Amino acid sequence: MTVRESLKVKLTIAYDGAGYAGWQVQKVGRGVQEVVEEAFTKLFQAHYRLHSSSRTDAGVHARGMVAHLELPREKLKMPIGKLSLALNAQLPADVRVMQIEEAAPDFHARFNAKGKQYRYFIYNYPAMDPLLRQYAWHVPQKLNFAEMKRATSHFIGKKDFASFANNRSYEMVTTVRTLRRCDLRKSGPLLSFVIEGDGFLYKMCRGIVGTIIQAGQGKFTSTEIAKMLESKDRRMAGMTAPAHGLILWKVFY
Amino acid sequence: MTVRESLKVKLTIAYDGAGYAGWQVQKVGRGVQEVVEEAFTKLFQAHYRLHSSSRTDAGVHARGMVAHLELPREKLKMPIGKLSLALNAQLPADVRVMQIEEAAPDFHARFNAKGKQYRYFIYNYPAMDPLLRQYAWHVPQKLNFAEMKRATSHFIGKKDFASFANNRSYEMVTTVRTLRRCDLRKSGPLLSFVIEGDGFLYKMCRGIVGTIIQAGQGKFTSTEIAKMLESKDRRMAGMTAPAHGLILWKVFY
Repeated sequence: MTVRESLKVKLTIAYDGAGYAGWQVQKVGRGVQEVVEEAFTKLFQAHYRLHSSSRTDAGVHARGMVAHLELPREKLKMPIGKLSLALNAQLPADVRVMQIEEAAPDFHARFNAKGKQYRYFIYNYPAMDPLLRQYAWHVPQKLNFAEMKRATSHFIGKKDFASFANNRSYEMVTTVRTLRRCDLRKSGPLLSFVIEGDGFLYKMCRGIVGTIIQAGQGKFTSTEIAKMLESKDRRMAGMTAPAHGLILWKVFY
Repeated sequence: MTVRESLKVKLTIAYDGAGYAGWQVQKVGRGVQEVVEEAFTKLFQAHYRLHSSSRTDAGVHARGMVAHLELPREKLKMPIGKLSLALNAQLPADVRVMQIEEAAPDFHARFNAKGKQYRYFIYNYPAMDPLLRQYAWHVPQKLNFAEMKRATSHFIGKKDFASFANNRSYEMVTTVRTLRRCDLRKSGPLLSFVIEGDGFLYKMCRGIVGTIIQAGQGKFTSTEIAKMLESKDRRMAGMTAPAHGLILWKVFY
């Protein structure tokens, strides 16, 4: 009849990636992870290790990054709902804890994740909108939207995405992933991708977006994407879209 | 049978107001106007004065500021459509010429303006979304949305807005203005105002938004807004909302 002494805390974190070398602590530059861990250290005078659902790259943003940590129960001297306010008071304005809750003792932000949704924004107009310059990729050339729509369909389903991932993947047991959604929407000059799947390889989202944009620029036809996937060779696919247009939007459990 | 020697150029300009002391050249800080004039000077080795539809305050953004200038026709050695590309190459990333066209010889950006549309964004959630922090006002408290909707209706029509303007208006012949729209929309925690009228007094938009938010916070009821308008006394109305949530969206001609 022992009371569990540690509390599993689940955090939903949003950040502007511009100022960071990515989620994870890097040799050069600051990681968002260390900034959030430091806020805990300031509040609790001890170091707790954060475990995240994903590792975003340098410059990539997040609206719904999920991470967890274990906190000794006696250390939390406030209702857990107040903890986000206390943490945000310690955090810089470009990182915010959006939600915080107690999770089941066996919850793991990475291993329990059932899927993730990324969004990618593109501003397709000769001049870049200065209000979107930090959150959208500027593509000034005319794009063939119908061809891009056709291109998206090739990515949906269970596929080997080896040609759409850079080498440094940290979970390279298999390069097969299942995408549930690869939607492309248009609202005036603003294009947005919604890409949802059970998991993503290193730089996979940006490889998909870069390839679709190049199909829109006429660099190749959408039907060539099937061949790119079959080749399982990164050099056969298109370019990697820049980091600052990508947002980790949501993690599903 | 003389050919007009000067060309009237109409520019649509977008800018992120964070880095500027407003549109107009100020004693302290840089004005967006001088930054655009300098880009012309670099291209044409002469100074041309820009005349704008509006003067936005320090920190206020624009998607559709309109301005005009006169350029000696023989100076323009490229099609006018190429001029925005050449200007943008000289401008910092937070200011962009979005459109440029030849206007009628008697066109005046300010005197010909038939109306203006402003938008104001509010993020209503305990923690601020870091991706919106530069373009929306963070209001963490719960708001009474129905009461705010009722409040908006008091501003529509031809009214004396003296109580919703700070003193420094540069067109204070009359404080009567007509608002065609004062819409409030909600999309999750993001609230947005669309305010459209034939003209706006100094800080009028921000006074309207601040007052409506305070009605939503229960500081007063929406019906008291009629009395505020009648009083023609700035001290009777609500607070001025911060600059960084406001965007000059469009100017009508």
